[in-house]
Amino acid sequence: MNKKPLILVTNDDGINAPGLKALTEVMNEIGEVVVVAPDRPQSGMSHAITINSPLHINEIKNNNSTNKVFTCSGTPADCVKLGVNEILTVKPDLCVSGINHGSNSSINVVYSGTMSAAIEAGIQGLPAIGFSLLNLKWNANFDNIKEHIKIITLNTIKIGLPKKVVLNVNFPNVSYEEIKGIKICRQANTYWIEKFDKRKSPLGRNYFWLTGEFVNNDKRNDTDEWALSNNYVSIVPTQFDFTSEIGIKKLNNWNFEK
Amino acid sequence: MNKKPLILVTNDDGINAPGLKALTEVMNEIGEVVVVAPDRPQSGMSHAITINSPLHINEIKNNNSTNKVFTCSGTPADCVKLGVNEILTVKPDLCVSGINHGSNSSINVVYSGTMSAAIEAGIQGLPAIGFSLLNLKWNANFDNIKEHIKIITLNTIKIGLPKKVVLNVNFPNVSYEEIKGIKICRQANTYWIEKFDKRKSPLGRNYFWLTGEFVNNDKRNDTDEWALSNNYVSIVPTQFDFTSEIGIKKLNNWNFEK
Repeated sequence: MNKKPLILVTNDDGINAPGLKALTEVMNEIGEVVVVAPDRPQSGMSHAITINSPLHINEIKNNNSTNKVFTCSGTPADCVKLGVNEILTVKPDLCVSGINHGSNSSINVVYSGTMSAAIEAGIQGLPAIGFSLLNLKWNANFDNIKEHIKIITLNTIKIGLPKKVVLNVNFPNVSYEEIKGIKICRQANTYWIEKFDKRKSPLGRNYFWLTGEFVNNDKRNDTDEWALSNNYVSIVPTQFDFTSEIGIKKLNNWNFEK
Repeated sequence: MNKKPLILVTNDDGINAPGLKALTEVMNEIGEVVVVAPDRPQSGMSHAITINSPLHINEIKNNNSTNKVFTCSGTPADCVKLGVNEILTVKPDLCVSGINHGSNSSINVVYSGTMSAAIEAGIQGLPAIGFSLLNLKWNANFDNIKEHIKIITLNTIKIGLPKKVVLNVNFPNVSYEEIKGIKICRQANTYWIEKFDKRKSPLGRNYFWLTGEFVNNDKRNDTDEWALSNNYVSIVPTQFDFTSEIGIKKLNNWNFEK
């Protein structure tokens, strides 16, 4: 009972990301930590898995740390699959992913490698949490949010999560003193107006670079976007059963006769 | 009113996949078709998007076809973003993705590039359908299922889909005569027991290849897995708001005090 929980730590910004280091530091205060992270940044990889090529694992020896640390040549979801099924010899008690450099709130969850790692852990039956800070910078200050990460993680270990639910936790980019508290939220109904920067390569060939404008027309005050813009930490309980109940009701009235 | 609908066709198996050809043939009976597909296979890419590198588009001229056909160097979700926002000058009436060579039923939806293309179209406000056949072979027979694809597509155009819902349509791998009908289903609660094939490269380095065993302990008869194993076409109305209502209720009882 007093055994320290075994915690699998991963991310999508890669093994060298400061957000991963900060998350590992918090988890070391809570349990025994094993890190399995992508060997290079994997932002926007969503739930991609590597099925048509081999995967490599390397152990990283670091004298400054007592943690076991591994890199994986694949995606965040690959890291979780390999971590749980090849690297660890016992099932971990928890998987945490992040701290992502940038938001994974509202519709961004769909594109997120950070959250897909947490969802993959959820599919494998583990309690899992993705943490993200609304600051894209590599040298963002993660110290502000360590205490909240610890509180949320300890609650998750103590109480457990509902079946087939993982947590999507986002932090506003403000000082510790400015954080007003933690809100349980729904995913705001948002989207991106896609814009592509059209450019010419040195050889004269057109290419496109994805950019876009984030649109939030969801004015409800129970959403993650509302919480974040009001300096609350947002927690969206996130499921991976995508069935639409409304959709089932409506489509049952369709007539599929030839 | 009598104008033919404009249909964006994409997939994840790439521009040369027979499943894409079959889907294009059906759509040509219904509307004006523009194809924007990945320039190479992108299976298992889920909802990955390309944010750290440029994207290229090439138009493919084919004397046998009157369709406009483009390849994109990115993922299925990139194809939809580029198709809707750069290639097409007017908003399409529908986006269809597939026909995937292999199942995207139950938990497979999470990993599916086919379904992520449909979901991306849904996020962009389009009616969208992903079609998959439970046959992984490149030379699978798609003729069996063309009539059902046409019926489902015509219903979708005529009636429209509920807001923020797209369709995940899977076909059993049986003859036309054996198909019993179409069922509206929920996503079965399934998972994969991950197994990695551990091998040695010619240079003696270990590598891992993802494999796995599909587990379905969900015995309900309203699921896609039940429908497919009983020779029905399954349609799961699929949403991209991942909020768990049960999760919100439970977590509202948590105490986050320090």
